[in-house]
Amino acid sequence: MLSRNEVKYIQSLCHKKQRKETGLFIAEGPKLAEEISASKYIIEKIYALPEWINKNNTVNAVAINEKELSQISQLQTPNEVVLIVKQAEQTVEPVLKNKCTVVLDDIQDPGNFGTIIRLCDWFGVEQIICSNNTVELYNPKVIQSTMGSFTRVKIWYKNLVEFLKENKTIPVFGAVLNGKSLYEQSKLKEALLLIGNEGKGINDELLPFIQEKITIPKKGGAESLNAAVATGILLSHLT
Amino acid sequence: MLSRNEVKYIQSLCHKKQRKETGLFIAEGPKLAEEISASKYIIEKIYALPEWINKNNTVNAVAINEKELSQISQLQTPNEVVLIVKQAEQTVEPVLKNKCTVVLDDIQDPGNFGTIIRLCDWFGVEQIICSNNTVELYNPKVIQSTMGSFTRVKIWYKNLVEFLKENKTIPVFGAVLNGKSLYEQSKLKEALLLIGNEGKGINDELLPFIQEKITIPKKGGAESLNAAVATGILLSHLT
Repeated sequence: MLSRNEVKYIQSLCHKKQRKETGLFIAEGPKLAEEISASKYIIEKIYALPEWINKNNTVNAVAINEKELSQISQLQTPNEVVLIVKQAEQTVEPVLKNKCTVVLDDIQDPGNFGTIIRLCDWFGVEQIICSNNTVELYNPKVIQSTMGSFTRVKIWYKNLVEFLKENKTIPVFGAVLNGKSLYEQSKLKEALLLIGNEGKGINDELLPFIQEKITIPKKGGAESLNAAVATGILLSHLT
Repeated sequence: MLSRNEVKYIQSLCHKKQRKETGLFIAEGPKLAEEISASKYIIEKIYALPEWINKNNTVNAVAINEKELSQISQLQTPNEVVLIVKQAEQTVEPVLKNKCTVVLDDIQDPGNFGTIIRLCDWFGVEQIICSNNTVELYNPKVIQSTMGSFTRVKIWYKNLVEFLKENKTIPVFGAVLNGKSLYEQSKLKEALLLIGNEGKGINDELLPFIQEKITIPKKGGAESLNAAVATGILLSHLT
């Protein structure tokens, strides 16, 4: 049985401050458990229902019951297994030559960020550079909505003005509402694809770095597109 | 001041059963208020902060304070105004000739459904046919994530097997994981574009109706794409 302190400790990892202090994060469900096990991430602890433990032949997991699972789970529908995992920082700098890299300027919604990571994984984009104000990678909602793709896509947090200044040889394409039609843009061999915040778009101080402004042409009445959906459409045409 | 009964009544509209009984739904925020006011939807009541009422010159709104707003709001960050609106049913049948119509098979996530409605609005798709098990249009999370597009896109709920049987002259394109590459498919002038459930894909009983299976080619490691993102990518290439 889980002690009250253990439950409290696991629950506390849903707070950013606690994640920062411990260097840990939570991931849930069989799919994420499988993806993380197959990755370089180090699993600190596994709490799981006996069925999951038997199925996965895992000797070092802590068996818990449904009630305990619902206490430590962040999901509306708890899903068999909760992992405590060590955060990993990128130790090397991104390689931008001959690649398309996604650059996120203050994406705030965890679901959007997670979906963008999953999209990059799908379209073979290996790297994402985030502004320092982008939502934290290890937010449980981000991790869950990546569906495991965070184990394959490399992610850095940087001051974007400095980053763009240092990498002036790589062409920057910005997703905006009044640029050149996406359908007229040829595929990108080497590029930084800059995606703005959900409400405010791309920060003014980043606009001078953009070589080509790109727009998804609209035929109907909607004012804008969801940031993750827009990223998906751009990647499907440009990569 | 709002009476306790009035607060309870408004709160009750976040439950499907109550929405069905009253034929009403809730919408929140200045953007939705503006879109609904400009549409054919009939607004039953408006509760708003005095600032919003002054700005919008609305005489028949009920002025409430921040505390009351937070009591009746479903949003994490309440946003100035809450509307009670009359549900509207489509009185005529969809017109499928010379059009691209989206068909949703048991989409369950309210955010996905709302985002798909917004996408259809963006790409000029005027009609969506939903299976009877698709999440309810008037779910507050659906309404909010449409960003107002539900006022422009026409939506029907139908038994999809019967619907597809009755409309055999319209070619059906299905989004699947093992079909023809999206990039080899020419634009659709007249089509039903069938999108499956988030986890299970398209129901087996609908597969025989598909003339062409379409896939978004993948280059990386992700197993699947979010249903709304996939719909966006398909619409951007096919419409």
